[in-house]
Amino acid sequence: MPTFNIGFVIFPDLTQLDFTGPLQVLNRLPDSKTHIVAKSLDPVPSDCGLGLVPTTTFRDCPRLDLICVPGGFGVVKAMTDRETVDFVKRQAEHARYITSVCTGAFILGMAGLLKGRRATTHWAYTDLLSSVGATFEKARVVWDGNVITAGGVTSGIDFALRIAAGIAGDEVAQSIQLSIEYDPAPPFASGHPDRAPAAIRQRLDPMFSKRRAAYRDALTM
Amino acid sequence: MPTFNIGFVIFPDLTQLDFTGPLQVLNRLPDSKTHIVAKSLDPVPSDCGLGLVPTTTFRDCPRLDLICVPGGFGVVKAMTDRETVDFVKRQAEHARYITSVCTGAFILGMAGLLKGRRATTHWAYTDLLSSVGATFEKARVVWDGNVITAGGVTSGIDFALRIAAGIAGDEVAQSIQLSIEYDPAPPFASGHPDRAPAAIRQRLDPMFSKRRAAYRDALTM
Repeated sequence: MPTFNIGFVIFPDLTQLDFTGPLQVLNRLPDSKTHIVAKSLDPVPSDCGLGLVPTTTFRDCPRLDLICVPGGFGVVKAMTDRETVDFVKRQAEHARYITSVCTGAFILGMAGLLKGRRATTHWAYTDLLSSVGATFEKARVVWDGNVITAGGVTSGIDFALRIAAGIAGDEVAQSIQLSIEYDPAPPFASGHPDRAPAAIRQRLDPMFSKRRAAYRDALTM
Repeated sequence: MPTFNIGFVIFPDLTQLDFTGPLQVLNRLPDSKTHIVAKSLDPVPSDCGLGLVPTTTFRDCPRLDLICVPGGFGVVKAMTDRETVDFVKRQAEHARYITSVCTGAFILGMAGLLKGRRATTHWAYTDLLSSVGATFEKARVVWDGNVITAGGVTSGIDFALRIAAGIAGDEVAQSIQLSIEYDPAPPFASGHPDRAPAAIRQRLDPMFSKRRAAYRDALTM
């Protein structure tokens, strides 16, 4: 059985958990190899002050079977960066699975990979999916053909378990879930705008309005 | 208001999500600063092939208000490493919160910080807590005085949201939860031995038996 090559594309100011959540799950897939891909081998700064060390570069990365693009505020720059978008486009030609977490969807979108697809992204940015030709579907994970998109940040864990099941079967995915004790018990019902208290949604409004505007500008540049 | 200093202790072969989950949450605490602490500033290899770049060293780290020790198989070495254990012990003298995720509990234990405490760890290792003087309590997050311990890997997200609420109030924790869209939807009921199918538990038995033996050896050295 040939090795299944999984590649995560990282870029400055990504939301690290968009990437590290699915990485923890997919790295445990049997007969697979994980690649952490960036422009150079220099550590990539994340949103949390944590630098992440790539394992390969856009130039040296082997052909990927699965490409995963995380999100974060750095997407605003990354989605208009030709080198990043070209890498994603080139790999997507042969990949069996083209995937994103959070606002990584807009990098797929700028590479033309969401045209005519059902997709999702972080809840604060779903209305922008139409500008890359996608149709927003309200779900934590959206699977349309070989394109799989996840909602915001932590949805990447649910997303990766579903992908693991799709690739290697339910038993493998269930074993990974047990090994990472993924038996969530959130202390509040505040993880989605449909459930969060109105006061909490309002607290976040100013920040996300500003960020959404920056995305909109970049998407229509 | 003085800055609230949060420090994560990292070491080779840690389970990266034990650390990156809580980091994503606690890094969003207002008036706080996050430190990623290791022996040197060299990138620390994690279990997933991802190198993690520390922001400070055991020598240069400021006095911490909260110390968090993640787990992973690297704990077997780290918990018998004098420099690591001494750092944790020294910081714990003044810290307001002494915490661990997953098998990071055994590093707290080797530093003498779990004696007479109720605590938890990854489900596969709970029977070893007594060897560091702790009483195992069956819960995803256990809060005893100023010592807070979490179960395996992903429990670090629930743990960090509860800590955020304790430090900065429910509204701050709820806002963080909404911003990271933490509205989990695991594809299977397989995240805890009480719920996972028997066949899945059996699949993991050989690996965890071997690992538990390595922990036991290190704890009784």
